[in-house]
Amino acid sequence: MASHPFDQALRLTRRPDDSWAGATHPAYANMVGPFGGITAALMLQAALDDPARLGDPLALTVNFAGPIADGALRIDARPVRTNRSTQHWSISLSQGDAVATTASAVFAVRRETWSATEAAMPPAPAFEALPRHPDAGIAAWTRRYEMRFARGPMRIEADAPAASDSVSELWLRDDPPRPLDFASLAALCDVFFPRLMVRRPGRVPAGTVSLSTYFHTDAAGLATLGSQPVFGRAQASHFGLGYHDQSAQLWSATGRLLATSHQIVYFKA
Amino acid sequence: MASHPFDQALRLTRRPDDSWAGATHPAYANMVGPFGGITAALMLQAALDDPARLGDPLALTVNFAGPIADGALRIDARPVRTNRSTQHWSISLSQGDAVATTASAVFAVRRETWSATEAAMPPAPAFEALPRHPDAGIAAWTRRYEMRFARGPMRIEADAPAASDSVSELWLRDDPPRPLDFASLAALCDVFFPRLMVRRPGRVPAGTVSLSTYFHTDAAGLATLGSQPVFGRAQASHFGLGYHDQSAQLWSATGRLLATSHQIVYFKA
Repeated sequence: MASHPFDQALRLTRRPDDSWAGATHPAYANMVGPFGGITAALMLQAALDDPARLGDPLALTVNFAGPIADGALRIDARPVRTNRSTQHWSISLSQGDAVATTASAVFAVRRETWSATEAAMPPAPAFEALPRHPDAGIAAWTRRYEMRFARGPMRIEADAPAASDSVSELWLRDDPPRPLDFASLAALCDVFFPRLMVRRPGRVPAGTVSLSTYFHTDAAGLATLGSQPVFGRAQASHFGLGYHDQSAQLWSATGRLLATSHQIVYFKA
Repeated sequence: MASHPFDQALRLTRRPDDSWAGATHPAYANMVGPFGGITAALMLQAALDDPARLGDPLALTVNFAGPIADGALRIDARPVRTNRSTQHWSISLSQGDAVATTASAVFAVRRETWSATEAAMPPAPAFEALPRHPDAGIAAWTRRYEMRFARGPMRIEADAPAASDSVSELWLRDDPPRPLDFASLAALCDVFFPRLMVRRPGRVPAGTVSLSTYFHTDAAGLATLGSQPVFGRAQASHFGLGYHDQSAQLWSATGRLLATSHQIVYFKA
């Protein structure tokens, strides 16, 4: 039985020195190096796979410090501090002597409390009512996600009109469909390409520098969702001096907020 | 000449092993341990003070892993990777053998590019037109900031009515006034107390677990602002399973977006 390409990409083998051996996967290749979302997922997975891990992912920050070459990579993940109900991890990804990516993750034992949501899912056509976004042929990883845009598709044609805001709203699902888990949710949070490409159509060099994701569900809540599509919204708040930020929200099909994610993006324009 | 308490709190002395010696400052004490914003500023300051530092702060993530006791502390800050125009730092704060806080910072050489802002400053009364928020007497650090609320003050009286959202909008200034710099901006981003205290009045145990800030200005742009007040807005998107997130924006008095900041907060309710 062939496993899902996402699971293949997340395969890690523990070495005698407790580091993890992994490799980039061609199915999640970006224009240069891997899709940032798969790197984020891989770094989280190293902590998830560790028998010392406590609870569920609560927060994940990934810093893309340098390029990742296609091929073998090494991940070091260690719990810096373990408390009664939280655990803080330091994680790094290296190739040869160079650190390419650093990350921190906070895990927590979640428990029922008072609950409220202020970020409501925007009204949108049903998943089935929207066409699948055609493959733009820019990067392999985009074919690993079924994207159905309600608003704000990426436009790489240089003659497309400029947009008045950077909002994208879209349905998202792994292709082929795969039951949601924390690693796939971490990757989905980076599917929202640089907002510059919505505001200013055309191919512009741009890439995530730092990404922070907060998880608003526990493993049990996530397991009830299966492989249903999720709805995402992303928008920048400021572009300038070579960088822009952007924030994203991911909801379940029934409007449950699953994750919020923020990033700062380099651009040349 | 007595220096500003903020500068006293950020005083770091380099040790022969390249670590930094510092101490908590009573003026920025929280109910237990120091105000999170001063800890964030202190960790950033260790990188700012390093002669190896390249460019201006772009992104800062601080993970509050454990309590900080009043007294001496040690900071280790090292550049993990230096590129042509960016530099990635790993920073930790420890007391004895225990790591209390970890952080990552990205520095960047900023340059003029296309610019646009989608997060406009909300309409608000002028700084002078609003009264200063009275000292609630809960923590020393609150007296180090002049807060003038346009909307959503913290309400610790248990009989205050519940609010329909968690929005706060307020003018903020160091007390005594102090020219803005990256360290003070980093601290100001954490002045927005847990949003739970706006939605559900009363004293509830709550504290920041992880905080990520993006800076949208360079040092030159910041220097033009002097000690003018800044306007801030904060709101949560979701409360549940013992944690809530919140996002904040900080604008200059003329409406320039200076920083966006996000955090995940523990709460017991």
